[in-house]
Formats: sequence, C-alpha cells, structure tokens
Amino acid sequence: MSRVTSHISISLDGFVAGPEQSLDNPLGIGGLRLHEWAFATEAWQRRHGTAAGEASVDSDVIAATLRNVGAYVMGRGMFGGGPGPWDDSWRGWWGEDPPYHVPVFVLTHHEREPLQMQGDTTFHFVTGGDEEAERRARDAAGDGDVHVIGGAKAIQQFLAAGLLDELQLHVAPVLLGSGERLLVNCGDPTLEPTDVVASPRVTHITYRVVR
Amino acid sequence: MSRVTSHISISLDGFVAGPEQSLDNPLGIGGLRLHEWAFATEAWQRRHGTAAGEASVDSDVIAATLRNVGAYVMGRGMFGGGPGPWDDSWRGWWGEDPPYHVPVFVLTHHEREPLQMQGDTTFHFVTGGDEEAERRARDAAGDGDVHVIGGAKAIQQFLAAGLLDELQLHVAPVLLGSGERLLVNCGDPTLEPTDVVASPRVTHITYRVVR
Repeated sequence: MSRVTSHISISLDGFVAGPEQSLDNPLGIGGLRLHEWAFATEAWQRRHGTAAGEASVDSDVIAATLRNVGAYVMGRGMFGGGPGPWDDSWRGWWGEDPPYHVPVFVLTHHEREPLQMQGDTTFHFVTGGDEEAERRARDAAGDGDVHVIGGAKAIQQFLAAGLLDELQLHVAPVLLGSGERLLVNCGDPTLEPTDVVASPRVTHITYRVVR
Repeated sequence: MSRVTSHISISLDGFVAGPEQSLDNPLGIGGLRLHEWAFATEAWQRRHGTAAGEASVDSDVIAATLRNVGAYVMGRGMFGGGPGPWDDSWRGWWGEDPPYHVPVFVLTHHEREPLQMQGDTTFHFVTGGDEEAERRARDAAGDGDVHVIGGAKAIQQFLAAGLLDELQLHVAPVLLGSGERLLVNCGDPTLEPTDVVASPRVTHITYRVVR
C-alpha cells in the first residue's frame, strides 16, 4: 500500500540547515556538511547525471528512497521562491527538466495553474493545506509512495498533523551549533525505529510513525 | 589503552532531560521516557539489585558500558547538591553504598576531603577543572576506562576541551520538545560513527572523537 514518507539529512545536533540561510546559500553556513555522505554515493551522482560516486550502503539507502515514488510534496521555499511577491512566470529553481519525473504538490498560499515541465514532472500548487496536499498526492501516486521532501516546515506540518507514515533521518556526525531545526513544532508523535543502516559517514534511522 | 568515554540517553530532538528539572524531579517532565529502554533490560535491573528485565541487545549495550570502568567523572549536580551552600556532612544522593565501586571524580568549585563510601566507591572533589579531573581519573583508572557519566555540562566540557575519546548516544524515539540539551557548547569536534546497535526501543550510536 502507498505510504507517506520523508527522508532528510540532519546534523547530530538536530539541524537540517546551518545559520544565515539565503537564496544564495539555501543550506546556510555549514549546511553542505550534512550532505557530504550523499555526494559521495553512486546513486546520488547518477541521479544528477554523473558517473562518479561509490557503491556503498549509503548509496543503497539513496537508491531505496528513489524507488517507487508516485508523487512528491514540497514547501513553497523548496519549489523556489524569493521573498517578494510570487510571479507566475517563475518556473522554480529546478530547471526545465526537474529531477522528479512524477507529480509534485507544492504547499503554498498562492493559487496557480499546474506547471508542466519536461520529463513528466508537473508542479501542482495546493492552497488547501497539508491535508489537501496529502490527499491529492496519494491519489496521484496510486500504488506508489508519497515523499514529503521538505523543507523542514512541510515535514513538521505533516508530522504534527499525523499524515506521515515513515520518517527516515540521515544523521550526519556533524554539529552545526545553530540553524534550522527539524524536530520542533511536530507535536508528540509515537515513533518506532524500524530500520537502521550505518556507515562511517552517516547513520540512517527509519522511524515508523504510529497512527 | 585506557579511554575516556561517555554514554548517555538522549531524545531524538536532542534533550537529556525534560523541562522543569528540580531536586524532586531531576530528569524534568517526560525525562523518564529517555530511560524506559534501559529499565526494561536485565543488565540495568541486575545493577540495581533486582532480577527482572530482559536479555536483549539493549541489555548487552548496558553491560558493555559497565565493563572495564576504572574511574568515573561526574558534575557536582550528579553527585547530588542542593541549591544552597554545600555542607560537608552531605554524602551525595547515592546512599552509603553507591553503585560505582571505583574512584569517582566530582567536578566542583568547593574543596573537600575525599569521601570514602562502602563498596570501594570514593568520591574525590576536583576543583581544578576538567583537565585535572581527566588526569586524576586516568591515573586512578590504570588500564580501565574513564567514564564521564554526566550531567550534560560535564560531557559538554569534556567534548569542548578535546578530552573525550568516545561518545555513545542512546537515541530514544521520543520528542521532549524542551528541556536540557546535550550537544550545545561542545565546539565542533570531529566525530566518526564507529558502531551502531539498533532495537525497537532505542538506537545506540558510538562516535569516536578524533583528536
């Protein structure tokens, strides 16, 4: 059956981005360090069109997160928006052939017609909140899973609303000291660790969210 | 060779105690939830004189932390002190036969003669800071390990000063929302995950602190 999942890299001290995030540096100071383990993998490099990267347990973890995805949900910031009013000519910062290839539901307060891109990615703009996004994404995903890919606020909303079935944290052995936290404003969900994969670079912990 | 290690239960959102800690409730609201995995184990129950508890990977993890300990280091709060001035007649809150059975070095600003308890536990009061505590504990431990058992501030000091060889986190699948954080004021140590043990109750991650 279709599940609603989320997979995100997080520092050992709980941050998914460093301080001083900006349009030029959306991960904030030090935020790239959270993703170094991923950059080193074959699966990530292949996804981004290069042949570099290592086969590894970390690579297998990434490959698994890309399997059987029927739809994505993302926040407006991740679609790509500046601080100013939203311009309908803006096509996101993923380029004309975004790396999704399935429907993507963007949480926003701004109504807008769906935006069809190359490679089977269509952005749908959802103004009815997380529940509407979950319902429409599940419908679109069919037997596939729905991935809530971020940012932090979108994942928090889904956790707090009880809409997430599974949360996988890629815990990087890094202390950022400050920045954007993931696990705030999430309520008190019942979490059950169901799978752990370890490498020298990162620890992947999968939690089932008990509904 | 003797190592300086620390082992501590932590919530998934980074707290080692809940909010509103007090002498009556040193773990704060919800703080007991961090330790439920431990209470369920045979090793913990045996250590505390009961025959209950399950044999499990969690129990093995606890048993390993109790093996080969030559000395402990603890903060003054963990020795047991009230908010008022310290009275030398006060013998800590561990009873006359504390569960340590080796020398224990207490970080404090208050000079005091060593306090010999039953069962080979002697409390030594160290006023020269973390480096003096580390040196004296290593000397006392011989070939054994030195455990920095807490509280959070003692572990932070040791991490920040580069005095810790290994940090094991028992990550409980619990969000406390607020309370006392562990991984603040620790500097930016280089951490390398060296061992991960998983159970349905908790995830044990051991980090080598690269010196």
